[in-house]
Amino acid sequence: MSAAIAPQITALARRARAASFTLAVTSTTAKNAALDKLAALIDASTFELLEANQRDLLSPEGQALSPAARDRLELNEARLRKLADSVRAVAALPDPVGELLEEATRPNGLVLRRVRVPIGVIGIVFEARPNVTIDCAVLCLKSGNAAILRGGKECFHTNTALAALITQALHESGLPGDAVQLIPTTDRAALTALLKLDTLIHCIIPRGGEGLIRFVAENSTIPVIKHYKGVCFVYVDQAADLAMAEKIIVNAKTSRPGVCNAAEQLLVHTAVAEKFLPAAAKALIAAARVELRCDERSAAILTREKIAHLPAGPADYTAEFLANILAVRVVDSLDQAIALINRDSSGHTESIVTADEQAAAKFQAGVDSAAVMWNASTRFNDGFEFGLGAEIGISTDRLHARGPMGLSELCSYKWLVTGSGQVRT
Amino acid sequence: MSAAIAPQITALARRARAASFTLAVTSTTAKNAALDKLAALIDASTFELLEANQRDLLSPEGQALSPAARDRLELNEARLRKLADSVRAVAALPDPVGELLEEATRPNGLVLRRVRVPIGVIGIVFEARPNVTIDCAVLCLKSGNAAILRGGKECFHTNTALAALITQALHESGLPGDAVQLIPTTDRAALTALLKLDTLIHCIIPRGGEGLIRFVAENSTIPVIKHYKGVCFVYVDQAADLAMAEKIIVNAKTSRPGVCNAAEQLLVHTAVAEKFLPAAAKALIAAARVELRCDERSAAILTREKIAHLPAGPADYTAEFLANILAVRVVDSLDQAIALINRDSSGHTESIVTADEQAAAKFQAGVDSAAVMWNASTRFNDGFEFGLGAEIGISTDRLHARGPMGLSELCSYKWLVTGSGQVRT
Repeated sequence: MSAAIAPQITALARRARAASFTLAVTSTTAKNAALDKLAALIDASTFELLEANQRDLLSPEGQALSPAARDRLELNEARLRKLADSVRAVAALPDPVGELLEEATRPNGLVLRRVRVPIGVIGIVFEARPNVTIDCAVLCLKSGNAAILRGGKECFHTNTALAALITQALHESGLPGDAVQLIPTTDRAALTALLKLDTLIHCIIPRGGEGLIRFVAENSTIPVIKHYKGVCFVYVDQAADLAMAEKIIVNAKTSRPGVCNAAEQLLVHTAVAEKFLPAAAKALIAAARVELRCDERSAAILTREKIAHLPAGPADYTAEFLANILAVRVVDSLDQAIALINRDSSGHTESIVTADEQAAAKFQAGVDSAAVMWNASTRFNDGFEFGLGAEIGISTDRLHARGPMGLSELCSYKWLVTGSGQVRT
Repeated sequence: MSAAIAPQITALARRARAASFTLAVTSTTAKNAALDKLAALIDASTFELLEANQRDLLSPEGQALSPAARDRLELNEARLRKLADSVRAVAALPDPVGELLEEATRPNGLVLRRVRVPIGVIGIVFEARPNVTIDCAVLCLKSGNAAILRGGKECFHTNTALAALITQALHESGLPGDAVQLIPTTDRAALTALLKLDTLIHCIIPRGGEGLIRFVAENSTIPVIKHYKGVCFVYVDQAADLAMAEKIIVNAKTSRPGVCNAAEQLLVHTAVAEKFLPAAAKALIAAARVELRCDERSAAILTREKIAHLPAGPADYTAEFLANILAVRVVDSLDQAIALINRDSSGHTESIVTADEQAAAKFQAGVDSAAVMWNASTRFNDGFEFGLGAEIGISTDRLHARGPMGLSELCSYKWLVTGSGQVRT
């Protein structure tokens, strides 16, 4: 590790911790004023932001990105307007801080209140997406947390320009400027140093690909909330409405194949496979030329019907394709479907299609995933669709938050106890 | 790492994971039957348990323990009866699994339910206390989690005897015997291997001294919930009822000085220091010969009154004494008290004594600790006192659980979504 960087990152984290104490007792009005100011600054800084973004796009790192990644990095006037609007939308959400979660009076007269409070200092580690920079800053600020942002090198100039606007908005609203800080270097040593500051930073949220998340989880002594891959399954039960099942698998697979709640695998009960698979395969191919990677039994059915498909390799059954590719297997029972899902899925989102209420209940109880759907597309596992108003990601962890993480999930709680001189005997 | 141990631990964790799927859908009745069976087996196995315990007490490791640690290790008939009763008490608690935490119908007709479910597989790492072995096994079982227990070497024979009873109770109740497993060696390599099994184990809870907790936090790739030290403060405000303050500090310091919610430091507002400190010091000395380690201002007052005290060293202001020792400082304001606490306490439990409601509100909002008391002893931060019925420890983390961790805090949740064919547009 570069000797010069670690003390600089420690100093930055100390300033964040100091700011967190102020933020924790800052009023909703003051936080919203800072957010509205930021939205106005984004609107007024189109030229500067697009110029910084151009520097990133033209940099060697920016040029080396895939077309899809370049598209995510690129800003334009419409996207900036959308970004400013997203800031205003968070300002309009209810403040989670101070919410009374539980209240009880004990036999000895002590009154207990469990109250929602910010976590403290949150470190967010992400890749080259300017909207993530703003999203994370804004969600942390609204939930009263100080944020330390560490973005990808491909986005460094854009992030620096956005961070300058955030700092200006904080200062002009009377909030501590250190409430949101961008790590001023993309040197990996800075990240490694950051991940060890467990007395100053309370939570690390990595957002990005599997490699980034693994690196963070393996190197952090700070608790990490992971937003890991989605290997989502749709199971078509023997009692399924097959037209509904077809609509759901087409939507789950093809409506946005690059996201974590897209389906990657189809399980079909043997009793309906002959009837369902040919129709579903045709619909998937018609919708988005989906490549079907089939086990022997599903392949046999599609071969008979002369429908294009490929044999699945063992890795396909646990793969997150993020593309118009779907693994397909035939199963003999609901129990087998549940067992395969619990073994091979990533625990993100699974769906059963069935008209049999008992089968659905068994599936929802037995499948150990963050969201278990019945007769609905996996694509609904999302903070906005769940009514959280916003999300910082979809947790595949089991501690603290599971599934979509909104403002409330960016909070902790504390116990406030009111007595009249009670002592313990 | 010993090459032979890691695969053995991995196999054990795989069996735990398999058992966790069964446990997650096991009825309350079946879980309670296993607990009642275990209580009966403990009652019926006094001879075997005391014999195993004697082996530990007479072993070189047992002989090397401090008298206090030996006392915690030692079992006798009365303690075994208490142990069996504690198992029955957990059986009598409500089952947290399946509790509906939230329900909502979205505009598109999807019905969302957030339902409490077990975390999955929990690893518990602890030292030489047989009651912890039973506590942890029983709380995990009741909350539907598979448990992997790793106890200290000084307690190995007692733990092995207790684990045999647990396995017998599970088998005789038709539950998977792998639901609770004891690591069959005290080799540290086994612990190191355990802490890396993040695909099989979902949470690690270390219970013990600072060294153990640090080792676990630094070596685990599995999320850890820490139950860290308690450097608890009592602040006597200028508007305090001084008789109440005296009673509270005496109770907080001396009722059980070896536990984490005992007070370690007294802050006194300068306006009441002259009057309060001499009386409080005399009461603390009278109650338990408390050694007072004073800053210059408090020392000056006690010197004038000829009351025994020592000068505090810098380390005393952040020390967990776990003994009849108390650091004492005089502060100029409520703000200064809050700032000192946020800098020097361990974020466990603090208490303000004051008749001024506004001062109390400011203290409770500003102090960033798991429990913030007003006119009550710090000793009340405890799962039983908070009405949780049981506790596996008191978390000083901010994620997932903060403060006492009972059965509900040993759970995660999942989202169950019921549709009628909805797809996302």
